[in-house]
Amino acid sequence: MADTATAQEFDVLILGGGSAGYAAALRSVQYGLSVGLVEKAKLGGTCLHTGCIPTKAYLHAAELADEARTSSKYGINTTLESIDMAGVRDFKDGVVAGKFKGLSGLLKMKKVNVIEGEGKLVSQNQIEVDGTRYTGKNIILASGSESKTFGLPIGGNIMTSTEALQLDRTPKSAIILGGGVIGSEFASAWHSFGVDVTIIEGLDHLVPNEDPEIIKVLERDFKKKGIKSNLGTFFEKVEETGDGVKVTLADGKEFTAEICLVAVGRGPVTAGLGYEDQGITLDRGFVITNERLHTGVGTGVGNIYAIGDIVPGVQLAHRGYQQGHFVAEEIAGNNPIIVEDINIPKVTFTDPEIMSVGYSEPKAQEKFGESNVETTTYNLAGNGKSSILGTGGIIKMVRQKNGPIVGVHGIGKRISEQIGESQLIVNWEAYPEDVAAFVHAHPTQNESLGEAAMALNGHPLHG
Amino acid sequence: MADTATAQEFDVLILGGGSAGYAAALRSVQYGLSVGLVEKAKLGGTCLHTGCIPTKAYLHAAELADEARTSSKYGINTTLESIDMAGVRDFKDGVVAGKFKGLSGLLKMKKVNVIEGEGKLVSQNQIEVDGTRYTGKNIILASGSESKTFGLPIGGNIMTSTEALQLDRTPKSAIILGGGVIGSEFASAWHSFGVDVTIIEGLDHLVPNEDPEIIKVLERDFKKKGIKSNLGTFFEKVEETGDGVKVTLADGKEFTAEICLVAVGRGPVTAGLGYEDQGITLDRGFVITNERLHTGVGTGVGNIYAIGDIVPGVQLAHRGYQQGHFVAEEIAGNNPIIVEDINIPKVTFTDPEIMSVGYSEPKAQEKFGESNVETTTYNLAGNGKSSILGTGGIIKMVRQKNGPIVGVHGIGKRISEQIGESQLIVNWEAYPEDVAAFVHAHPTQNESLGEAAMALNGHPLHG
Repeated sequence: MADTATAQEFDVLILGGGSAGYAAALRSVQYGLSVGLVEKAKLGGTCLHTGCIPTKAYLHAAELADEARTSSKYGINTTLESIDMAGVRDFKDGVVAGKFKGLSGLLKMKKVNVIEGEGKLVSQNQIEVDGTRYTGKNIILASGSESKTFGLPIGGNIMTSTEALQLDRTPKSAIILGGGVIGSEFASAWHSFGVDVTIIEGLDHLVPNEDPEIIKVLERDFKKKGIKSNLGTFFEKVEETGDGVKVTLADGKEFTAEICLVAVGRGPVTAGLGYEDQGITLDRGFVITNERLHTGVGTGVGNIYAIGDIVPGVQLAHRGYQQGHFVAEEIAGNNPIIVEDINIPKVTFTDPEIMSVGYSEPKAQEKFGESNVETTTYNLAGNGKSSILGTGGIIKMVRQKNGPIVGVHGIGKRISEQIGESQLIVNWEAYPEDVAAFVHAHPTQNESLGEAAMALNGHPLHG
Repeated sequence: MADTATAQEFDVLILGGGSAGYAAALRSVQYGLSVGLVEKAKLGGTCLHTGCIPTKAYLHAAELADEARTSSKYGINTTLESIDMAGVRDFKDGVVAGKFKGLSGLLKMKKVNVIEGEGKLVSQNQIEVDGTRYTGKNIILASGSESKTFGLPIGGNIMTSTEALQLDRTPKSAIILGGGVIGSEFASAWHSFGVDVTIIEGLDHLVPNEDPEIIKVLERDFKKKGIKSNLGTFFEKVEETGDGVKVTLADGKEFTAEICLVAVGRGPVTAGLGYEDQGITLDRGFVITNERLHTGVGTGVGNIYAIGDIVPGVQLAHRGYQQGHFVAEEIAGNNPIIVEDINIPKVTFTDPEIMSVGYSEPKAQEKFGESNVETTTYNLAGNGKSSILGTGGIIKMVRQKNGPIVGVHGIGKRISEQIGESQLIVNWEAYPEDVAAFVHAHPTQNESLGEAAMALNGHPLHG
């Protein structure tokens, strides 16, 4: 099929070169399809340039700062001389530049036609970029998301994560509006960099989508280390004060700090891109699709699909990859399996880190009925490697009574990497005994999953 | 059953309170069996006191030292003032003491009867300890292992890992006899502590049981960082020189250093314990069992089982746990499944770390035939989190052609925790598409397993 496509006509034409879009592109060319990939900024999108990768680079630098402060407890006498935020930024920029180079080279090598510029859907099989119309037998919309700002005046000392990642100084103090994943990650990193941090969260808890037991550990840990939180009241106003910012809450309470990070969620980038003109249904800016990611309701709109952060659900890069692959496979006629959002693994790189996949205890009770859910909570205090790393935390497993494990949740230093075994357990619908029968290597943090499975199976190793 | 047992008579009588023995004890009491556990030294055995736990504590301190040296690259300006080996030892002792207290308390709480003293098998259902005979309806031998020394004069500057873990100074230089797991781990830690390290290994490679590609990465990394190796020639002589040691190889080559670590493997502790007198078959000191760990050949010897390091095969604490559970389940009549040694996960905590489970490429070719094996090697250079951590390395997956994944191997900083998903993949006999269909969280090192599975399935995400 690739042979018959011209520069202006593709088997697959994709609007947006972020995680979702480029994954769809790469998977499509593997099936011999010709691909056009429209990107207005930089290939790699939010995740690579202003999201996952740069924030995790900051969080690793933060981990190093914390370790330098505490390593004398381990016999390693270290002095933390200074935090050089410009240096942290340069490290982050170096990682991003390396990945950007790799991705750009890969797309070129795989003969993905990258079309630079702002694209707009102008018919059911055409996208216009700078006055040129490109045709796609199939169109994939992957225009991504951006920080919500609720009309706040971004600039100066009021910033979104994008600007925050460009700071070349360490502010004395920061107010973070929003205690979700992004807000909590920044709170954690900045605290480690020596910033006096206050989180303002309108809901009653930080990272409110996690299991309540996990939330409790995070909130206690943050409090203990001196990250302040004001929960349960929404903010009303944010003002520049000349030398800083003032935030006023709905109850009149005021907070001041040097800077303010607005981390109140991310909204879809779909306005003015012609989607609605072509009959695509939007809901509060999100593109409505069927479960196979075909746009529109009922018979749908042409051969137009949507993937990534513009599709309602969890906004995560790896969900974008998966949806990109899914649609590429769908177009190639391979009838791929659907991975439900609930089974998408989630990781939060705060200190302590959080990982979770599947149902939390309350969500499982809601789904399966209160009396049909069993859980076990394993305390990392019993895990040798965690003791060596100096971390507490828990692993919580949720199962259907006499049924499979439907949720695995964890919190603790470095616990993020346990997400691999956890998501296989949940996605393969394993029973506790399927996991407990096999050996977990000693001494790893991974043993904690084995211990939890054994406990849920009625036979704990250490207990 | 517990009701009928007296202080001197147990349903299950276990010789040795290390990982294997105490796991058997705890699992047995879960089934209401009365348990006697004989231990001559400290509960927890080699793993807790002189093996896994203390060495991993050293290796974490080593990691902290390396991070202090390099963290300015991340914008965290740190000075490594000194390595305080007595402090490292104290940290290690603190972790061990905490775990020892936990284990002792747990065994007491679970009503395991701990019998302190040297035990000897004196009949097919009796063990004598300090002149008192204890009877067991079932006997489990779990007497463990000790460092081999080949008659070398241990003491002063010539030591095994046990003495090495008590050092309160940082030697200027060290010769390590043996480049297996223990030798390589000490080499890695000591190098990070500033010791000038030379490994003497009689075989042609370090960690010779690993996949050749993994070995290559480790050897290259060790060489690059300045850990010296002399491979392919066995040592002949080790002498104290007054202010240090001199090691002479079979080819006459001589090496000198301040200390010498003898890390030439561990042998079973079975001599003089009465095993052979009761008709149990030993082979070079190891207890021969059938595949259900019953001692002896043919009809076997009484109700006597053997578990842990005295049973031929991989000498690992978690294999000991598993065998302890297995025999407890067997005695309880639950017909447990056999986990073959090849499917026991293995982790080496060198920097870079190594993890592996299942067949290496050459072993798979030997087992399944050369043309029936396919492999993929994923380079961690493509993994975002690994780039952030500043680590290279690889993930290698081995599958039967058109069949399941039979081996997963990895090397890189912090890669040990990938063993969890890896061992499930191999033990559940997953096909690459079973793994590739599901989502790996971004940005984690765990994504590398997803990438490898996708590549082995013909559809790499980034490639």
